[in-house]
Amino acid sequence: MAGGPLTHLDETGAANMVDVSAKAETAREATAEGRVSMAPATLSAILAGDAAKGDVIGTARLAGIMAAKKTADLIPLCHPLPISKAKVEIAPVDDGLVVTATVRVTGRTGVEMEALTAASVACLTIYDMAKAMDKAMEIGGIRLLEKTGGKSGHWRRPEPDTDIA
Amino acid sequence: MAGGPLTHLDETGAANMVDVSAKAETAREATAEGRVSMAPATLSAILAGDAAKGDVIGTARLAGIMAAKKTADLIPLCHPLPISKAKVEIAPVDDGLVVTATVRVTGRTGVEMEALTAASVACLTIYDMAKAMDKAMEIGGIRLLEKTGGKSGHWRRPEPDTDIA
Amino acid sequence: MAGGPLTHLDETGAANMVDVSAKAETAREATAEGRVSMAPATLSAILAGDAAKGDVIGTARLAGIMAAKKTADLIPLCHPLPISKAKVEIAPVDDGLVVTATVRVTGRTGVEMEALTAASVACLTIYDMAKAMDKAMEIGGIRLLEKTGGKSGHWRRPEPDTDIA
Amino acid sequence: MAGGPLTHLDETGAANMVDVSAKAETAREATAEGRVSMAPATLSAILAGDAAKGDVIGTARLAGIMAAKKTADLIPLCHPLPISKAKVEIAPVDDGLVVTATVRVTGRTGVEMEALTAASVACLTIYDMAKAMDKAMEIGGIRLLEKTGGKSGHWRRPEPDTDIA
Amino acid sequence: MAGGPLTHLDETGAANMVDVSAKAETAREATAEGRVSMAPATLSAILAGDAAKGDVIGTARLAGIMAAKKTADLIPLCHPLPISKAKVEIAPVDDGLVVTATVRVTGRTGVEMEALTAASVACLTIYDMAKAMDKAMEIGGIRLLEKTGGKSGHWRRPEPDTDIA
Amino acid sequence: MAGGPLTHLDETGAANMVDVSAKAETAREATAEGRVSMAPATLSAILAGDAAKGDVIGTARLAGIMAAKKTADLIPLCHPLPISKAKVEIAPVDDGLVVTATVRVTGRTGVEMEALTAASVACLTIYDMAKAMDKAMEIGGIRLLEKTGGKSGHWRRPEPDTDIA
Repeated sequence: MAGGPLTHLDETGAANMVDVSAKAETAREATAEGRVSMAPATLSAILAGDAAKGDVIGTARLAGIMAAKKTADLIPLCHPLPISKAKVEIAPVDDGLVVTATVRVTGRTGVEMEALTAASVACLTIYDMAKAMDKAMEIGGIRLLEKTGGKSGHWRRPEPDTDIA
Repeated sequence: MAGGPLTHLDETGAANMVDVSAKAETAREATAEGRVSMAPATLSAILAGDAAKGDVIGTARLAGIMAAKKTADLIPLCHPLPISKAKVEIAPVDDGLVVTATVRVTGRTGVEMEALTAASVACLTIYDMAKAMDKAMEIGGIRLLEKTGGKSGHWRRPEPDTDIA
Repeated sequence: MAGGPLTHLDETGAANMVDVSAKAETAREATAEGRVSMAPATLSAILAGDAAKGDVIGTARLAGIMAAKKTADLIPLCHPLPISKAKVEIAPVDDGLVVTATVRVTGRTGVEMEALTAASVACLTIYDMAKAMDKAMEIGGIRLLEKTGGKSGHWRRPEPDTDIA
Repeated sequence: MAGGPLTHLDETGAANMVDVSAKAETAREATAEGRVSMAPATLSAILAGDAAKGDVIGTARLAGIMAAKKTADLIPLCHPLPISKAKVEIAPVDDGLVVTATVRVTGRTGVEMEALTAASVACLTIYDMAKAMDKAMEIGGIRLLEKTGGKSGHWRRPEPDTDIA
Repeated sequence: MAGGPLTHLDETGAANMVDVSAKAETAREATAEGRVSMAPATLSAILAGDAAKGDVIGTARLAGIMAAKKTADLIPLCHPLPISKAKVEIAPVDDGLVVTATVRVTGRTGVEMEALTAASVACLTIYDMAKAMDKAMEIGGIRLLEKTGGKSGHWRRPEPDTDIA
Repeated sequence: MAGGPLTHLDETGAANMVDVSAKAETAREATAEGRVSMAPATLSAILAGDAAKGDVIGTARLAGIMAAKKTADLIPLCHPLPISKAKVEIAPVDDGLVVTATVRVTGRTGVEMEALTAASVACLTIYDMAKAMDKAMEIGGIRLLEKTGGKSGHWRRPEPDTDIA
């Protein structure tokens, strides 16, 4: 599971933005997910509201998409990337909601952080919109599912790994 | 665990920023945490680097603090708040790193989202800085530990709840 | 209709952010509106989509609320304000959609620009989401309807003024 | 006037950022305009100030250029684009000021929203700088004049269309 | 010249945003300056342009004012502050231009960084607008001139200190 | 030392973002430096803290890198650029700290402003973190050392030029 060195640290250990200028500009895509676990009554309220108006889930989905565009502003050593697609889907599961985010770019570095950031901020937005009902909600399972493109090529999460936070 | 209604939805179900202008300006504080679970070799590399230079953990801590200040820009219906303190601590646990974020404000609404956002972005930054070694890291256990101040008063997470994502 | 001097210009004519530090911190509110006129088929498509999913109107409403929080970042001489409420409503009219934005703050200066910015960005978002169908849509009628609070007190737009862009 | 479907809505009606990764990177340009109608005394004051110092109009022009760069941050489903030119011109007309904004990019999607956003924010800035004199000013006539480049090619606003808000 | 400890470091040496919640909300002001030294021909071109159009100096002044509002976004441990005034003045001196920035707030912490950031960004903007003529320009003399308010009270730069970068 | 015209001013003298769309996309790099001069006790405290924890210098380095990404947001007429590398180094000199920033891009315009902005904000951050000890610190010597790429090609600062602010 562990591969190369900590590439953000230069020879003296100082954090710097990795030089990607020699990398080829290729099509890259990443998909990440996250989950919000919550009390059954909270989930019911969100889903009922969603059935009628779509607002909790719709707001979280937009927040995730907009966050994908802010990734380089949030993560200190991320490169700014002109992403060409961002899609966020939110679906109910037994104990809450699962968020899946897919981001695509034609660029010199991948969009794993954009997908993970989109998923995280969508989860935070769900928390924000339902916290008046349920402060004990928990966000977890934020992980990369798959990435394609770039020198390291295709990566897919090894096992189905169904445990959630 | 479930309390009031979904306060971000108005009578027609449309999402809107809740009016807090009638609330008193009081001292409020919130503490949240999050965890990044990772392969043992990844944790060792981060801690070794940290012992020598402090950069992975130091960078994540700063990213979390700066993210607390961006909360209202990320979470669509959050109120902008002039936070008076933001503290992020990162410590190793068995299978990774745990991030604890505390935010304080004197204002008309609480800083739960600021603390949760700080914890989330610190975790994402850890992922970013170590992902060359370990793409399978997982972020979880993002949850509110405690909040004080405001009309709803003191809230503390019910049980110790030690499971992590 | 014309009142005082151009207060953003100092004695030498240079643009500067007006000093409001001597003003009292009072409750202030402003309401503004804007309209997007469009082909009947465009309006029908938006409303049909809205009836089913709520997304064009829901997205524009959120964009307007989030833009209210960015006003001081967009308008060079606006003061940053911790707004306590932002509400954006969008309703169909004969030839398109009308956006109404209300913003509230307890502060040293008013929120007219926040309300106008929210209305403008909601209109731009409607344009963005429907432009594949209808590039000839036009945004107009962006104007302040009412403001309360502050030294200049209550102001309401003189006549009903029903003409639109 | 009405063409294709509402391309921001996916098959389930959820708003998402359209995938443009398969589009060719071509030169694209868009021109948009907007107007601020105002009392004659307000226009005179602005023009007199402008003749002497250039500040109201100069400030609005810069605000428009800077806003073009923030478009993807303001409009939820806009793609971030590394624009290669932004020009904002402001000229007096009978009842106020007309703003014309032109934006250019070499990219996978057009810059209509960047031009419209630049025009809108320049108009809002004019309002901000003159509102102490004239709160009844109205912003209107925000519309696309022309776009070139991309698969949909050249589009020019059909009729001269001289009515303003 | 040296006073207290490095207050941004907590007991373990980790950087954190200092807690100012116990401080009183008082009126505070800070003034800072900076200089851009340049070739005589560059200064002449700027001043000639300025006499006629005002744009280099006008643009730099606005950039400084807008940067004051972004200070907490730029400086990791700065508190966000709702500044009540920002004024930037630019005047020619023998070998270039001197920028003076004054910022005011009613808040729990001072605005030294806001004034210094405004001066720095105004200088950078002057460089940007004239760099096609003169890449060897140098920015220097960025320093606090005076601050008032807060527990530490009035501070004025000890000696006239006329040397510049 | 003085070369071409003030290229940000169009034929009428109005400030506009220069059109770079006809320029070739080439590899470009720029290096800039800046210095913070301070009392010996301040420098000792920073270096001692740095030896133990690395935080003042580490924080300033990150602030510089993040600022490079915000350049187009700060400098009104700068083009947004997807930078491919940003490196900030900070070293002690006799009377303080010297910051060196290098930025790289493959793009249509250079990254001089990104390097200068990174150096400036790193210096401001050093000031912020040490100002409780020493308000009289001064930032100076902010200047371009070298640039490569683009039509104007290689430029290197003429003389060693060791004077500092």
